[in-house]
Amino acid sequence: MALIVQKYGGTSVGTVERIGNVADKVIKMREQGHDIVVTVSAMSGETNRLIELAKTASERPSAREMDVIVSTGEQVTIALLAMALEARGQAARSYTGWQVRMLTDSAHQKARIEQIDSEAITNDLQQGRVVVVAGFQGVDSDNNITTLGRGGSDTTAVALAAALKADECQIYTDVDGVYTTDPRVEPDARRLDKITFEEMLEMASLGSKVLQIRAVEFAGKYDVPLRVLSTFEDGPGTLISLDEDDTMEQALISGIAFNRDEAQVTIKGVPDHPGVAANILGPISDANIEVDMIVQNMGGKGLTDFTFTVHRNDYERAVDVLETVQAELGAKSVVADAKIVKVSLVGVGMRSHAGIASRMFKILADESVNIRMISTSEIKISVVIDEKYLELAVRALHAGFGLEQE
Amino acid sequence: MALIVQKYGGTSVGTVERIGNVADKVIKMREQGHDIVVTVSAMSGETNRLIELAKTASERPSAREMDVIVSTGEQVTIALLAMALEARGQAARSYTGWQVRMLTDSAHQKARIEQIDSEAITNDLQQGRVVVVAGFQGVDSDNNITTLGRGGSDTTAVALAAALKADECQIYTDVDGVYTTDPRVEPDARRLDKITFEEMLEMASLGSKVLQIRAVEFAGKYDVPLRVLSTFEDGPGTLISLDEDDTMEQALISGIAFNRDEAQVTIKGVPDHPGVAANILGPISDANIEVDMIVQNMGGKGLTDFTFTVHRNDYERAVDVLETVQAELGAKSVVADAKIVKVSLVGVGMRSHAGIASRMFKILADESVNIRMISTSEIKISVVIDEKYLELAVRALHAGFGLEQE
Repeated sequence: MALIVQKYGGTSVGTVERIGNVADKVIKMREQGHDIVVTVSAMSGETNRLIELAKTASERPSAREMDVIVSTGEQVTIALLAMALEARGQAARSYTGWQVRMLTDSAHQKARIEQIDSEAITNDLQQGRVVVVAGFQGVDSDNNITTLGRGGSDTTAVALAAALKADECQIYTDVDGVYTTDPRVEPDARRLDKITFEEMLEMASLGSKVLQIRAVEFAGKYDVPLRVLSTFEDGPGTLISLDEDDTMEQALISGIAFNRDEAQVTIKGVPDHPGVAANILGPISDANIEVDMIVQNMGGKGLTDFTFTVHRNDYERAVDVLETVQAELGAKSVVADAKIVKVSLVGVGMRSHAGIASRMFKILADESVNIRMISTSEIKISVVIDEKYLELAVRALHAGFGLEQE
Repeated sequence: MALIVQKYGGTSVGTVERIGNVADKVIKMREQGHDIVVTVSAMSGETNRLIELAKTASERPSAREMDVIVSTGEQVTIALLAMALEARGQAARSYTGWQVRMLTDSAHQKARIEQIDSEAITNDLQQGRVVVVAGFQGVDSDNNITTLGRGGSDTTAVALAAALKADECQIYTDVDGVYTTDPRVEPDARRLDKITFEEMLEMASLGSKVLQIRAVEFAGKYDVPLRVLSTFEDGPGTLISLDEDDTMEQALISGIAFNRDEAQVTIKGVPDHPGVAANILGPISDANIEVDMIVQNMGGKGLTDFTFTVHRNDYERAVDVLETVQAELGAKSVVADAKIVKVSLVGVGMRSHAGIASRMFKILADESVNIRMISTSEIKISVVIDEKYLELAVRALHAGFGLEQE
């Protein structure tokens, strides 16, 4: 008998009928002898409906009042799920964020969970009840309602699992697990049985949007085993855990992530002297533009080319900023390209195996894919390439590292 | 400068546009230098929508979970009104029931308010904010969400006014005050400038459904001056207060109420001996049928006729009950009539003026209206008459007591 925290997202609870299906799934798990705590999102569309209503009342509604209105979405779902469970003969009890004292900081619309009072939940579980907790919401120390920001229900589930020392935190979504890469790009992509938190973080931050990054970080920090499963089909899903070493042979590479949302900006022919990077990136940062990859190449004759990537929505602004400081820096020109894509190999196996980078570059070279930028971390190698080569590069790497095989 | 608690019902906040109008009204009052606390209901239709949703999830949803889902209705409205106020430059802050610790008993869906923590509200008022509080909802001592039952927002407003020692509690509705009688029956009906709590209670309990009875009782108990006004037109409304004596000459009669929802039941020829009333009404009470007026007449020869009124929905059941005990009681027959109506004169002036009853009976006799039952209290005289005479009787009494004149 285990204690399991389950989370069902907006699509999974999108209609009362689907909420009934969730109740059936919960009861099935309960009949296996497990204690169950369920976290739910608002019914799909409901959060947007409430935001629209708010925008009709005020062009710029205050963050505090937005949290008051938006948090009603999950409150409706918890009541409906508790009712559906009760209608099926399963004792249940719903809790809003404040009712379990899901204490957060006061950053409305992007609050962070600080503490949970799990006493009521533990008490209910002991009495055989299924506990249903509103995702995405909390309360600050002044009793203001807060929300964790979009996707925050995943974080709620992990925080509950950590506070209750649950055996597993199951995130039910509309996909049946984490894949080696996006199956829409590579039909041979394979569902991973398991992956580490670190790998998942790299995959998630690179655009595999199965889980919220914060939830994965949280799970890693508190060592909460996290499982991604489908609400609509049965299956084991993908287990995300700390454990790297319980299989005999660790795969070299777990997956290939990619991100189409970036653009590349280069300032060319900058006289190279200490502090030049700061002089270039300072104004960018002042303009609230976030920089991802950064590469500096010697251009010869004491001049350097400085290249970085930013979100595609920001690159025109980044160019404007650089053009205003170009003269001051003594740079020759500013160029930008939005038609690029970042492709990354992710795998904890890199730690113990050399030569993965050169193998990656060779696979790309064999397909005549030109690499424009390279950046590496302990468990990831990222390259920036022309957008048109995305599918070709992903498929070549997927095959080249044998990811289609178990 | 006064402290005023205002309450706006579901129709008054039925759309975001109407919520904007409420914000304008609140700000107008605020500009006169008053401190304002506003209580609102759910947007009209919203409570029913939530109840329907609940009934789809479960045929018999538990009262606890009903309160969780239904209380979201007012939570949406408070946020929208606070936003609308802020958008107009008026600082505001919304509070749910639990946020002002609107402590109630644990009777879900019909909870009673026990206590309010007004500290946060007072603090906000001192800082120049308008405070917006969710009507209809509270929290019990175990942090369960409760609701006060339909119409409970009036009670919330009065409870807030009592706790804050407000100068006036204003209930905004779709009528512009309390009338001498229903204007649909008597076009000459006149809006009353003022009326006492006792009179209002008699009027309300007899079918003038402007205010919830519990709210009037509450206001009377804590001596909170209550004013009924229209949301949609300007005007002074009707002030309901303790004060009977501040006008030189108190009107004899304040109004005429009537109730079409009753039926008359008579058990005839019952041998009269001590305990006969209990023997008749005991089985009626056991069947959970509420009795309103009761009259016992001597029928001669030691026999008595016993007549009472019940709700029209219950009279057939009442007849069934009496027929089963008829033989045991030695009664001759049971007859019933649903085509009756109760008409009542209400006025604290009756206390100091004799002869009002006989004047009432004479007015009715002059119109050949037969009186079937009579019942009197300190400030009310009720008669039961044939339903077909309702309009005639109301108009004759309205004119006969000069109610159309100020």
